[in-house]
Amino acid sequence: MKINIDASSIRSTAAFCTAWRINMIAKEIGERGIIEIIRERLELPEEMVTPFGEDVSALDIGEGRLLALKADMLVGSTDIPPLMNYFQAARKAIVMNVSDFASKGMTPKAFMVSLGLPPELGRDEIEQLSLGLNSGAREYRTHLVGGDTGMARDLVIAVSGYGIGERSTLILRSGARPGDFLATTGEFGDTAAGLRALLEGVELPRQLKTRLQRKVLMPQARLDEGLAIAKMRAATASIDSSDGLAFSVHELSRMSRVGFTITKPPVSRNARRFAEITKCDPLDLALYGGEEYELVMTIRPDMWKKAKRLIPSLLKIGVATEEREVVAEYNHRTITVEPRGWEHFKSEAEWSGRRP
Amino acid sequence: MKINIDASSIRSTAAFCTAWRINMIAKEIGERGIIEIIRERLELPEEMVTPFGEDVSALDIGEGRLLALKADMLVGSTDIPPLMNYFQAARKAIVMNVSDFASKGMTPKAFMVSLGLPPELGRDEIEQLSLGLNSGAREYRTHLVGGDTGMARDLVIAVSGYGIGERSTLILRSGARPGDFLATTGEFGDTAAGLRALLEGVELPRQLKTRLQRKVLMPQARLDEGLAIAKMRAATASIDSSDGLAFSVHELSRMSRVGFTITKPPVSRNARRFAEITKCDPLDLALYGGEEYELVMTIRPDMWKKAKRLIPSLLKIGVATEEREVVAEYNHRTITVEPRGWEHFKSEAEWSGRRP
Repeated sequence: MKINIDASSIRSTAAFCTAWRINMIAKEIGERGIIEIIRERLELPEEMVTPFGEDVSALDIGEGRLLALKADMLVGSTDIPPLMNYFQAARKAIVMNVSDFASKGMTPKAFMVSLGLPPELGRDEIEQLSLGLNSGAREYRTHLVGGDTGMARDLVIAVSGYGIGERSTLILRSGARPGDFLATTGEFGDTAAGLRALLEGVELPRQLKTRLQRKVLMPQARLDEGLAIAKMRAATASIDSSDGLAFSVHELSRMSRVGFTITKPPVSRNARRFAEITKCDPLDLALYGGEEYELVMTIRPDMWKKAKRLIPSLLKIGVATEEREVVAEYNHRTITVEPRGWEHFKSEAEWSGRRP
Repeated sequence: MKINIDASSIRSTAAFCTAWRINMIAKEIGERGIIEIIRERLELPEEMVTPFGEDVSALDIGEGRLLALKADMLVGSTDIPPLMNYFQAARKAIVMNVSDFASKGMTPKAFMVSLGLPPELGRDEIEQLSLGLNSGAREYRTHLVGGDTGMARDLVIAVSGYGIGERSTLILRSGARPGDFLATTGEFGDTAAGLRALLEGVELPRQLKTRLQRKVLMPQARLDEGLAIAKMRAATASIDSSDGLAFSVHELSRMSRVGFTITKPPVSRNARRFAEITKCDPLDLALYGGEEYELVMTIRPDMWKKAKRLIPSLLKIGVATEEREVVAEYNHRTITVEPRGWEHFKSEAEWSGRRP
């Protein structure tokens, strides 16, 4: 069969695509699309041992040692929910950076901050921000050592820092093999429930409400767990779960070219209680919540017992499979886990109003 | 003489001061005031060899070697003038970070970026930003190796990075001694003139306008100069001039506890021509402009000839004095140089509108 190609139609299709590309805006492109646009235009150094888009950017500095950089930013209008005060926001900006180092088995050493402040922000709030930055850094045996500040229309807490590690214990997103155990450092769902409790003012038993909100306002990074797992070389792949459990597992799937069956979704007890009260699906809370800072890892089966002994909070939640799909078994159902996460640009949410 | 202290008046004064403090907002406190608030609340590590607020934060990593961190942010509404396109803005965000490493005699190695993007920003603009980041990094033999992105109400280009150096060749702001020569790596005034040409649409000869604007849109960091001066240990103190010549000299004065007499203000030929045409004071353009990226240094007199031979662009502009005041001699006048600079929060300027 001969195929006639009409050159003019190709040109017009190209023109259409170009026009479409030109008209696309950041919000439509999405966070991952934007990262791809940037990556395509960068010349990366030879000594870089992590692919662009990993949790940290690690550079080989000789003799098997790595230096990693990380930058992750909180923006007032989109990242900081109401009722989170300035101390908590600044502390969280550090914690989320620590979490990424933890997921790669690297030790954070020092942080910097670029603070963009709305001009009408008060002295008290600036003091709260300072204390939160210091507190976040000191909790993980690191320090905030400098930064800069300027006026901005939006509150910006752009934290960056460096960490160190060894090439032999670096854990990428790409090392999982079929048969590896899928594990997390803790349960999921509290943050999504807590955020809804904060935003929607749901009536909840007081203790439950306090616990859920605490998870949102004072998150913890799993630094000791990440470092211990790396040291014993038990993990074949790892990612932090700031974009949500579903997205994190899909990212391990994409980068490792494996699938996953989640046999025991790690839905927290409090998320179950919240779901019961509000008549929502607890599995959704656990899978698609985001802003949780557990580590999601694949563990070599022969290392499982040792890993579990050292880190009792470690939960075996499933297994890596040949077939590249992500499914979850829950309440005698098997569902397909969607690659949905916590992408800022895809979300319409904008938070505003005075903080406590 | 007995002094009667009325306790109630003390309390009311304290109450007044507290109220005043509470009501002060970021814009009134100013950049340096905010940095002071933060510094007071931080626990800094023992291995930190630079005071908080230096051009970079340097940490002793053993065997006389230093690792330095830097974070400096560009914000669309206040830092990026109209006519500066996205490529130029992103490139400049790197250059201004390189300049700080240069001023301390440290070699920048890699950069990260946190990009806050207004949701309606187009794909083309994101491509321009990416290319500008890469270009800025590559011009100074470094790389942009990662970062993150999110939605923000303001364009935010928060660049951070690390550099390396030696403790023996680190140049702080605090080492100047009376008798040291005050020197700069180039002339001043072009940026202030160029910015006014951009903002006010002044009628200028085409070549002059192009040259002035180029200084604003495509600034250069003096990395080779800073490294060479550090290597030969010719400088006793150094600062970059992003806050303007006057402010930079005052900062050397404050940190080194010396004064300065500027005997030969380094006013550029183009700034003089601009001043002639627009009937303004060329000295003001050179002293109070800001956003220039020359290095301002004090040089040991016995090293001057050697330094000048190696770096022909180096200009001897004055001398450090015992008396702690900063004066300039210009056109047979002696004037007091004010510690005015380029402080964002003190400025009312907010730039807006579409970029080219």
